[in-house]
Amino acid sequence: MAAIRKEDENIDVSLRDLSKKLQDFAKARDWEKYHTPRNLLLAMVGEVGELSEIFQWKGEVEKGLENWEESEKEHLGEELSDVLLYLIRLADICGIDLGHAALDKIHKNAIKYPPIFL
Amino acid sequence: MAAIRKEDENIDVSLRDLSKKLQDFAKARDWEKYHTPRNLLLAMVGEVGELSEIFQWKGEVEKGLENWEESEKEHLGEELSDVLLYLIRLADICGIDLGHAALDKIHKNAIKYPPIFL
Amino acid sequence: MAAIRKEDENIDVSLRDLSKKLQDFAKARDWEKYHTPRNLLLAMVGEVGELSEIFQWKGEVEKGLENWEESEKEHLGEELSDVLLYLIRLADICGIDLGHAALDKIHKNAIKYPPIFL
Amino acid sequence: MAAIRKEDENIDVSLRDLSKKLQDFAKARDWEKYHTPRNLLLAMVGEVGELSEIFQWKGEVEKGLENWEESEKEHLGEELSDVLLYLIRLADICGIDLGHAALDKIHKNAIKYPPIFL
Repeated sequence: MAAIRKEDENIDVSLRDLSKKLQDFAKARDWEKYHTPRNLLLAMVGEVGELSEIFQWKGEVEKGLENWEESEKEHLGEELSDVLLYLIRLADICGIDLGHAALDKIHKNAIKYPPIFL
Repeated sequence: MAAIRKEDENIDVSLRDLSKKLQDFAKARDWEKYHTPRNLLLAMVGEVGELSEIFQWKGEVEKGLENWEESEKEHLGEELSDVLLYLIRLADICGIDLGHAALDKIHKNAIKYPPIFL
Repeated sequence: MAAIRKEDENIDVSLRDLSKKLQDFAKARDWEKYHTPRNLLLAMVGEVGELSEIFQWKGEVEKGLENWEESEKEHLGEELSDVLLYLIRLADICGIDLGHAALDKIHKNAIKYPPIFL
Repeated sequence: MAAIRKEDENIDVSLRDLSKKLQDFAKARDWEKYHTPRNLLLAMVGEVGELSEIFQWKGEVEKGLENWEESEKEHLGEELSDVLLYLIRLADICGIDLGHAALDKIHKNAIKYPPIFL
């Protein structure tokens, strides 16, 4: 794993890369038949639940998670990733270019909520 | 909007790009004070709800959304983006490198579920 | 509405009552065809999202909601109800007696987590 | 467990009963300090995730769950209950009478969506 992390260190991971990896992953396991929009959506909701469980009994949590143990942060990274991966896969299966959609949404939000600082 | 889409057409949007844009967005609106981990998590759950509403009365939905109207697909792209943007912001505020975490998770999954096709 | 509230004041609302009301409601509107398990589940997730939106930017919230305005509390009551009603309807459509299931679950939890005070 | 089910068979479980049982449960375990609104909400989202996992790879599911195994139905009953119990506890901690709120919501919905059959 250390090697992988080393290798990835300067990689700026793109949505399209992840989408492609997930396509290959599903194909190599014959999982494409399970990857319908609503199956993926419910799988994502399942992962959102697991993400919420990490935060559920903690009361307010500070930015940067200063007092969290390393193992908890790693667990959090995994659950955030699970949500992300199902989200990307859902978008792909629906034929939505998630990267473009996200840039568009930021653009729309910028118009809806003008900046107060220049 | 057409111009933006044109301009973006060949851009492979990265998680780090989006994270940076969201940092600037929050800063320019003095919203950083609202962006605590649990606030962002609940905001994301809110968006997951809006995403689910799009699919709720449809019964099974086919890949590619063949019979969906263009306006529905655009709406879907917006809701997928809203989930993505809060997820990225949540990871950033927690100090998690979401791109690395996602690559690690795919790697772990590949070991857990070996491919059946070579 | 005042009259209804008056009338309901001493009624201890049961899960079976609500289930029956929802059956009648769906039947009278020809909505039974939409009430499949996964449709209802996604509708419930949608309502969980709306419930979360009420709490999303508030930071930690105190028990009893002391500083909340009456209109906010009423809104909260509506969203809690929406989740409840879809949950009850989902259980009913799946053929699960939710009241019994809930009593059983409390019983199991009591064994799993023994009381520390007698 | 058989005895419990027998005993409960004719009991029409009320929201207020469950709410009271949950109060006693928390008190006897010194858990009241953890039961803040947002903790309970996130715990509920966690259970919604577990409920969704049951349905995630199934494609469309028929009413009545005809081909499900008994153990799966029991698992479903448990997850539906977990969502219900956190929802009831959340309402209670917020000072909302969930039974009244639910009746009010059905009443409002009946006005918003008039019946087509008399």
